[in-house]
Amino acid sequence: MSERAAAGGRTVTLALDAEGGDHAPGEIVAGALAAASPDLRVLLVGRPEMIEPHLAGADTRHVEIVPSGAGISSLEEPARAVRSKRDSSIVVGARTVVEGRAEGFVSAGSTGAMLAVGLLVVKRVPGVKRPAIVTVLPGGEAPVVFLDAGANADCRPEHLLEFGILGSIFARRALGLREPRVGLLNIGEEPTKGNELALGAYPLLADPAGGLRFVGNVEGRDLLFNKADVVVTDGFTGNVALKLLEGTARALLLRVRDAARRDVRSKIGGLLLRPSLTRVRAVLDPEEYGGTCLLGVQGLMIICHGNSSRRAVANALRFGAEAARRGLVQTVQEELGRGGGR
Amino acid sequence: MSERAAAGGRTVTLALDAEGGDHAPGEIVAGALAAASPDLRVLLVGRPEMIEPHLAGADTRHVEIVPSGAGISSLEEPARAVRSKRDSSIVVGARTVVEGRAEGFVSAGSTGAMLAVGLLVVKRVPGVKRPAIVTVLPGGEAPVVFLDAGANADCRPEHLLEFGILGSIFARRALGLREPRVGLLNIGEEPTKGNELALGAYPLLADPAGGLRFVGNVEGRDLLFNKADVVVTDGFTGNVALKLLEGTARALLLRVRDAARRDVRSKIGGLLLRPSLTRVRAVLDPEEYGGTCLLGVQGLMIICHGNSSRRAVANALRFGAEAARRGLVQTVQEELGRGGGR
Repeated sequence: MSERAAAGGRTVTLALDAEGGDHAPGEIVAGALAAASPDLRVLLVGRPEMIEPHLAGADTRHVEIVPSGAGISSLEEPARAVRSKRDSSIVVGARTVVEGRAEGFVSAGSTGAMLAVGLLVVKRVPGVKRPAIVTVLPGGEAPVVFLDAGANADCRPEHLLEFGILGSIFARRALGLREPRVGLLNIGEEPTKGNELALGAYPLLADPAGGLRFVGNVEGRDLLFNKADVVVTDGFTGNVALKLLEGTARALLLRVRDAARRDVRSKIGGLLLRPSLTRVRAVLDPEEYGGTCLLGVQGLMIICHGNSSRRAVANALRFGAEAARRGLVQTVQEELGRGGGR
Repeated sequence: MSERAAAGGRTVTLALDAEGGDHAPGEIVAGALAAASPDLRVLLVGRPEMIEPHLAGADTRHVEIVPSGAGISSLEEPARAVRSKRDSSIVVGARTVVEGRAEGFVSAGSTGAMLAVGLLVVKRVPGVKRPAIVTVLPGGEAPVVFLDAGANADCRPEHLLEFGILGSIFARRALGLREPRVGLLNIGEEPTKGNELALGAYPLLADPAGGLRFVGNVEGRDLLFNKADVVVTDGFTGNVALKLLEGTARALLLRVRDAARRDVRSKIGGLLLRPSLTRVRAVLDPEEYGGTCLLGVQGLMIICHGNSSRRAVANALRFGAEAARRGLVQTVQEELGRGGGR
């Protein structure tokens, strides 16, 4: 894989769900047009009559429409919808990966449906027990790889070990870290702290046989403070944590905004500070981090926030192209895809 | 209880662990002196020779020293330390409650040791399965009662129902809400979302037989946005969430501070905005919320943050006196203490 990782700007083709997300298809198509280049071809999957108006007047040399039906709503039961709606954009998009027409699939549609097509259409890497949603958090000094962000609500200790391996591969391949430090999200620093799951996972993560650079427990208060490069937890705790982080950031920035409207003095202060504060918001903005992906399946699957703007979509496509060039999925297949044993 | 709740400023006596916390005994004693009044007597539990120097020159009419040995460190195994160190400040303080010398006990020492003395010395209210740590989060419009913040790392669905009942009592008695809305922390809004625990707890919480005003699932992103007045979860998720909230707030405020140092324009803006921003910090400051308590035991047990300042200690004492006057523990005994059955 190292030659491949070093190959730089080879052309990557990615499929994009033009029917998925709150602002589909307009913002999705605009994001594709912003990211598409000679090095990044984008297959727009969706109803042509919905997509074409948004292509009018644009440079369409590096995009192509792959016709499909509509998307799958997040209100539908994902597995059932994926099985019955073979024509939906999310199933057709996933099939472009299976058929080798694209190296990856990007969608801002239902996370549940992406998870279902990942398992049912793209399929697990043989040997991987639990594909996980990997996300990148804005640590103070460097990004923090965090998983599982919601694919597996109930986990066993061996799944957390697998997440440690998947997260380490992600940190190496997608973020370029050489020897990522792995931590276990827990309610205390000592190995004797935690619920049954954490107590069971700790020795597995610490065992040299696992091949991880394990640095111990990471408490919630330290998650953003770079105590570890990769932090693992079950998909329930991970999803609650990710959404809480988002909610806390929103609550705080709303309060800072209100503070800057309190009186004339504060208003002037707020105006002067605004350019710098905009940069604070950018650091915390999930749209800047294109890197939420379902790892452990036989293709690159990138999940965008439902309310993704064109900028978020373009960032996700660029992230996906880079991850493809660096052989993220191939590395998972090489390191975990040995038909089990762990 | 209503006569008692209406009794207003009757004198309450609380014990305070003068040996617990990062800044003990100086800040602890200072907090006691700030809060003590004719309506609030404080028993300072600790080594007299450590406490006395901090009382020099102060008005000590409403404080009294109750001699004990040193505290229990958070590095010690809590249950073992509580059993073997009968002379420790935390055991002696808890005993003042059992003996009726104080109506409650406040400590900034080891949370694990507080939990252990709660269960082993103060003891559960008969009929309560799992005493829980109740905390108050800074919601946008109103406070949010959140539990379990760490007493029970592994829970069963019926424990979450009990937390709903305990949390509702807290919201009524300590915050004065008439019919608190109860929510379940979960990874989706639909009743079909969640891990096994949440899926099992949902119907119990929704069952009218439980007597709760249940409003459904609350996602992490909505925790601070007043979708419910009381939000329940297991002690693992709750502890991770609470500490993550603390960490995210710290990370964000650090970034706002850095933004206000970037250039001359931002520095001036930051200076003008500072008074308003200080108020933002105060809203998010756990020291303003004295109300973290272990609920479900036969006495008022208030747990302060380890790095509590005198202000935090004084706020906790005032909160404790008010909770005692409003009959918080008595209400738990009346509503849950019927020897089981639920």
